[in-house]
Amino acid sequence: MIRVVQMGLGPIGLGIAARAARESAIEIVGAVDSDPALEGKELGIGVPVVPSLDALPADTGADVLLHSTGSFLAETAEQLEAAIARGWHVVSTCEELAYPFYRHPELAAALGERARAGGVALLGSGVNPGFVMDKFIVTLMAACERVDSLRVVRVLDAATRRGPFQKKIGAGMSAGEFEKISAGGRLGHIGLAESAHMLADAMGVGRERELQRELRPVLAEREIVTDHVRVEPGQVAGVHEELVVVAAGEKPVRMELDMFVGAPDPRDAVSVRGSQAFDVEIGSGLAGDEGTVAVVISCVPLVASLAPGLRTMLDVPLAPTTVPHRR
Amino acid sequence: MIRVVQMGLGPIGLGIAARAARESAIEIVGAVDSDPALEGKELGIGVPVVPSLDALPADTGADVLLHSTGSFLAETAEQLEAAIARGWHVVSTCEELAYPFYRHPELAAALGERARAGGVALLGSGVNPGFVMDKFIVTLMAACERVDSLRVVRVLDAATRRGPFQKKIGAGMSAGEFEKISAGGRLGHIGLAESAHMLADAMGVGRERELQRELRPVLAEREIVTDHVRVEPGQVAGVHEELVVVAAGEKPVRMELDMFVGAPDPRDAVSVRGSQAFDVEIGSGLAGDEGTVAVVISCVPLVASLAPGLRTMLDVPLAPTTVPHRR
Repeated sequence: MIRVVQMGLGPIGLGIAARAARESAIEIVGAVDSDPALEGKELGIGVPVVPSLDALPADTGADVLLHSTGSFLAETAEQLEAAIARGWHVVSTCEELAYPFYRHPELAAALGERARAGGVALLGSGVNPGFVMDKFIVTLMAACERVDSLRVVRVLDAATRRGPFQKKIGAGMSAGEFEKISAGGRLGHIGLAESAHMLADAMGVGRERELQRELRPVLAEREIVTDHVRVEPGQVAGVHEELVVVAAGEKPVRMELDMFVGAPDPRDAVSVRGSQAFDVEIGSGLAGDEGTVAVVISCVPLVASLAPGLRTMLDVPLAPTTVPHRR
Repeated sequence: MIRVVQMGLGPIGLGIAARAARESAIEIVGAVDSDPALEGKELGIGVPVVPSLDALPADTGADVLLHSTGSFLAETAEQLEAAIARGWHVVSTCEELAYPFYRHPELAAALGERARAGGVALLGSGVNPGFVMDKFIVTLMAACERVDSLRVVRVLDAATRRGPFQKKIGAGMSAGEFEKISAGGRLGHIGLAESAHMLADAMGVGRERELQRELRPVLAEREIVTDHVRVEPGQVAGVHEELVVVAAGEKPVRMELDMFVGAPDPRDAVSVRGSQAFDVEIGSGLAGDEGTVAVVISCVPLVASLAPGLRTMLDVPLAPTTVPHRR
């Protein structure tokens, strides 16, 4: 039985906790969220929400922190450190933790050192980053003699996603608002750069590399109403994001992400070129929110067997929790 | 630097050795094959072939045996035991070793116990079984809340494969010869049952299960000439094989494998049905021989970090050898 504390009870954290509560090998021993409206509530997961890790009973006996409080490493590092200090492994959906060696090298080194010293593994997980645009592709690459270039495309209809997600992609904003807010770097998908670095590393691309990013709004051509937002024609429906890795005069990795409400033909697609040339497509695309919950839960029985330190999805022999015959 | 001995120098073993020789982190310290015609030859891999493990110098300092001598566990178990006795990890392309818990439970237990006692990992690897019809799909399943049924299809044009492979699928035989030899269980693909059991386990299918197998020859409609065989119209071009897992009145896994010279539209395809419904296709299909070599080589730096005992590809965080930031 693996005892977990769930920290962060937004839609994703709550989804993880609900799924954890249904797993026979996982016991939820604590729930933490800073939202005063949630304090003391049980939310169907069997334990009352407390406002901070310090407010948990001292004797939870937890093994793993499941962490879903934010996308930015600088803003969540203290929480991660607090879990490490308690001797807990961590599986986090913090997007910037998925592969932080390039964009946050100092923080990555410091967190890794703490985790190593504490004998625990710290893992950034989820479906994107963490799976569909990185780990899944790296797994495929292991069956190729050589990969020279990758083109990775994800198209998702944001109308099927949670409210905070629709907000993050600017759905319902005017084009002017979008421009203003996007300049602050808080719109679009967090984690694409982390996926790009993971792919480039797996391809053996040198560390001297540049990421060229383009983010532009996709404007609605017709009115679109979701459970969370109403988008008028001409308003922002979401984003188109492109990221290209440039190294040694080549462009080995090209990533394209369309996330807008009403996006047609949702899919995940990868073109692999090298010693083999083939295209892979996941028709209709992997479901994002269900995927994140499933990948995190799949990691729970595995995280304790990873070497202590800052680990990535590359280190995880990913499989559903139903798999037997594991060490 | 990981020191390896290559045992078995047929087309696959030779491909593995040639690739190992090009890897900067791998050193070949021995080569073994029982074919007298190969004895003493270097085959471009830097060491002379000896006829048995016992004929190797005592001081090879090997860490890992790369093993490609046969498809059947009962016929290779002694070789595997000899490697374990020397304190070597093993990565083997023996198809029946890929997931032997159901079809060879006693042998699996005995080999696992020896490996555990010897502090080494014994791993069945390759592209099929080992990747494209099992591990790859299990990896995808980790991003799904629940998988109720799988249909897995692999179509490959055997004309692109090595000679022994074309022989194994009966290419060039008459239908009568095929029937006679196929009754002995030595035609068709070895390993499909192992993949089916791995998938069923990953889906949480109970151990009470039956595998229904159908194997039939595909007859050539026109003359087909490959580098290795000439197939006249009406002769066997290869095989169509189906395997269905039946458990608790359901058929959770259905696998279909077409392997014949001249097969049109080669591909790998998976239909996943459960909490999500999606189809995945690898257009043109993963190259089999290159894939096996690549997957085996990808496992070399990982096998020593697995828990001692009989391991499977489910235990392996598969990625190309170029990946850094590993434990």
